[in-house]
Amino acid sequence: MLYKTNNDLHSFSASDNNYKSYYECTANIIAQIEVDSTQLKEYNAALKEQMQTAVRWEPGVLTYYAVADKKLPSRITILEIYADSAAYQKHITTPHFKKYKTTVAHMVKKLELVEVDLIGSAKQPGL
Amino acid sequence: MLYKTNNDLHSFSASDNNYKSYYECTANIIAQIEVDSTQLKEYNAALKEQMQTAVRWEPGVLTYYAVADKKLPSRITILEIYADSAAYQKHITTPHFKKYKTTVAHMVKKLELVEVDLIGSAKQPGL
Repeated sequence: MLYKTNNDLHSFSASDNNYKSYYECTANIIAQIEVDSTQLKEYNAALKEQMQTAVRWEPGVLTYYAVADKKLPSRITILEIYADSAAYQKHITTPHFKKYKTTVAHMVKKLELVEVDLIGSAKQPGL
Repeated sequence: MLYKTNNDLHSFSASDNNYKSYYECTANIIAQIEVDSTQLKEYNAALKEQMQTAVRWEPGVLTYYAVADKKLPSRITILEIYADSAAYQKHITTPHFKKYKTTVAHMVKKLELVEVDLIGSAKQPGL
């Protein structure tokens, strides 16, 4: 598949009685990143810029959530949802992604990418 | 804070030029769970039921994403976003959460909960 239209996806909410995953065919990644703690502010800024730009310009980049361990904020986890593998492969060739990779190359101490399947998700309508 | 209205949250999208996190005050958890692989189907069903029920009945339960390692599907990661700490504390006293905990007690081999801060998120409008 390519990706669903916004209308299709909008029906995925808590009010949908026929709840099911609308992300069944997506390509999903959990990225575990350890950042040089002295460069955390710069890393987070670069990460946010990458996420915003990708979602704005690539319809196949569906969703990002980036979180940091409260006790060890240099330990970062990113949930990445792409419409499909092709969308991910395209994403990593884009100028904004390459810019991000170059910017953070000397900030990232460890990077692990794990391919994951979406078991399910749920969220408040409108979120 | 309590939680924002749906209208406030709806503006959080790729088309929002003044991008920022609307989740700044939320309580966020990453749960790392290892499930008995012989009971994975039952576990995933119980998890999905818990997620749906919580989001439907608790306005302070904002968002869940549950994913499984493609190679080791008994390794599950859940991103949980609550409106605030009070919403989380209330959540774990609800009948549906208690039912889930009882149902999966003999299925879960390992559970780690990590409190996290949201660095940022981005998603396609309507998702």
